[in-house]
Order: sequence, then structure tokens, then C-alpha cells
Amino acid sequence: MIRLLLVHDDNLLRCALASLLAVERDIEVAAASWREVVPPDAPAHSADAWLVDTDCAGFAALTAEDPVVAGGGVGHRGEGGGGRAPGLVVLAPTGRPGLLHRAFTAGALGFVSKGARPACLLDAIRSVVRGSRYVDDALAFDFFSATHMPLTPRELNVLSLAADGAPVPEIAERLWLAEGTVRNYLAAIIRKTGARNRVDAIRISRSAGWV
Amino acid sequence: MIRLLLVHDDNLLRCALASLLAVERDIEVAAASWREVVPPDAPAHSADAWLVDTDCAGFAALTAEDPVVAGGGVGHRGEGGGGRAPGLVVLAPTGRPGLLHRAFTAGALGFVSKGARPACLLDAIRSVVRGSRYVDDALAFDFFSATHMPLTPRELNVLSLAADGAPVPEIAERLWLAEGTVRNYLAAIIRKTGARNRVDAIRISRSAGWV
Repeated sequence: MIRLLLVHDDNLLRCALASLLAVERDIEVAAASWREVVPPDAPAHSADAWLVDTDCAGFAALTAEDPVVAGGGVGHRGEGGGGRAPGLVVLAPTGRPGLLHRAFTAGALGFVSKGARPACLLDAIRSVVRGSRYVDDALAFDFFSATHMPLTPRELNVLSLAADGAPVPEIAERLWLAEGTVRNYLAAIIRKTGARNRVDAIRISRSAGWV
Repeated sequence: MIRLLLVHDDNLLRCALASLLAVERDIEVAAASWREVVPPDAPAHSADAWLVDTDCAGFAALTAEDPVVAGGGVGHRGEGGGGRAPGLVVLAPTGRPGLLHRAFTAGALGFVSKGARPACLLDAIRSVVRGSRYVDDALAFDFFSATHMPLTPRELNVLSLAADGAPVPEIAERLWLAEGTVRNYLAAIIRKTGARNRVDAIRISRSAGWV
């Protein structure tokens, strides 16, 4: 029996996914929102696999250094079958390679697009529990794009602040940079993303899921 | 028996929602993507109600003048029970009043948040088929905000083009305006949205679902 923890922030969609999975005889589903299971003080969950929607608000903030994922999988706080950390399966939209990159960094083994057939999701869950990787065909191209992210971490920092509406002096102050340096970073970002201007660079990067 | 047409662009979530609804004895579910049911040349669907996710790519483009919604409901092309147009129930995220405004304009009668309990969704479907309105509690505040959209249609046009990355001269050319006029519109947009600059105005308006 596979113990699956389904993490989704929208209750209705979480119930719907749980009801889709509930008919499988070899999968036992527990469901929760990100906020209920991820903070360090949340109760530990005993699961063989986690299924997480990348649209969860907290997902965007996930990094390899996050205590939740450190140790190779989100589930280090629970006990997986056979003492192994639970495998992480993510449910991702297509066309946003930045999200896949983040999920990969967070130790995900299974990658399923939201447009997939339910059978793909089941394959992914079963593969990951066996310790194998699984990438849905529809995401394969995004995976390739994810290795071609043109921006440096520093440029991403600058872009994230700009995307939140911070003007150049504020970005400079928050990152301990000179204003001219911030402008140079922004110019590099516009050039590298092939954008027409700053707004366009933010739009392109956001739609790819980089910021 | 209620014949429900479930419209969602993501196959996996569509199957999940269908499986949630399939256990109800009084609801018969047909499911399709937006592209399959909305274009004028798509086959007509016979349904008592439509359930549409506002995240469908085509939803953002929906207006009251759209042939799909003209006549008071998306389903004028099919035949509803008793010759009435099918009722429209939308599944919407909270915090994006612009989407609700669009759904309202498109003739929606039922409004259910994605965080709702499944029972709310069922209530909404049954109410709408009886010809009553239904608004989920979680969306009530957004409804109030939706009546306070500060921008004029012209300002929204300017903002949409700016949000796509168009520079001022291009916006001016496409809307047959002087560049100074476009700049005045952008200044008004920034002031009315309480933004710090143009990027911030786009962020605020996008997050509210106005553009």
C-alpha cells in the first residue's frame, strides 16, 4: 500500500484530486494544504510519496536549502517506507521551465503536467515510490529549456525586486549595490531575455516561471 | 437529472473534478476543454449548466458581446432543460475581483471559490439550474471590490498593452493616441492604483485580475 500525502492549497481541487486517486486500491491518500504540512512546527507526516501542486503559494519560495527539502526530499520530517525519505511528485503547468527547475532543485523525482491523463499521474506516483524518476512527455521540452535559463542568481534577485514594483534606488539599497550597477543588471536582463524593455523582461521571465 | 458540462483546460484537473461530481446521483457530467466547446463551429452541447474554471485561457477574453455568452448564458448554442439557456457556474480564485467582474458580465449566476468545500460547488450547480444565483462566502468581499475598479476602459487598454511589454510609442500608435496622451494615461493609472511606478501598477492590476 502506498501512503500518499497530497498537498494542494485549493480545497476544492484537493478534494477532486483525492477523489480521483481514491479509487486506486494500492494508494491511500491523505490531503493537506501547504501551510498545514510544510512549516517546521507542522506535525510530521508519514508518507511514501508527496504529490505537490507547483501553484501552492509556498512552492515558489522552495529552495534546496529549505529545511523542508534538505536531505533529498520534502518528507524528511516524516518516516518513509523502509526508512527512506518520501519521493516528491510535482504537478506542474507546461511552458514554465522555471518551476520545473525549482522542483528539480527541491529534490522532486516525478514531474506530471496538469494536462496529463490520470494514468500518467498514477505511473509517476508508483515510479517515485520505487525510487525511479518520472517525467511526463508534455514537460520534456520544458526540461530542456530549464537548462538554458539565461540569468545569473544576482540578476534574478534584481529582477524579482523590480517585478514587485521596487524602483532602482530601492533595489540598490536592498541589495547593497550602487544605482548604476542595478541599471547595468537591468540592461543585461533585458538583453539576455530578448525583451523590449524592463516591463517586457518581467513579463517574459514571469511567464517562464523564473521569478 | 442535471446535465452538467464541465469546462477546464487541464485534463488532469478536469478528470479530478469530474470524478468528484460523478458520485452525485442527480448530476450527469460531460467534460471538455474550452477549445472543444466554445468556438462558434464547435458542436452544440445540450446541458442544464456549465461549470467553467476562470483559469481557462479563453476565459480572460470573454465579454458580454461574445457570441458564446450573448443571450444571457454561455450555453445558447445548446438547448437547456425546458428551452432555457444553461446556467453558468464559474470556479474562481479569491483575491482577483477582475475575474469575477468578467464572469458576471458574461452572465454567470454561480460563483464558487477554488478553496470551497465540495458541498458549495454542488449547491451552486443545483441553485443555478433552478434559476437562482449563488455566491460562495469566500468571494463575497471580492464581489464588493469588483464594483470599485478604478480604471476606465481606455486606461485598461493602455495598461494591457503596457503589460505586454509595449513601449509608449507603440501603445500610442496602436491606440491612435499622441505619446503625451499615453503618458498621461499611464500617470493616471499609477495614481489611481496607488502604485509606485508603471511596473507596480501592472503588478497590482494583474494580481486583481483587471488585465
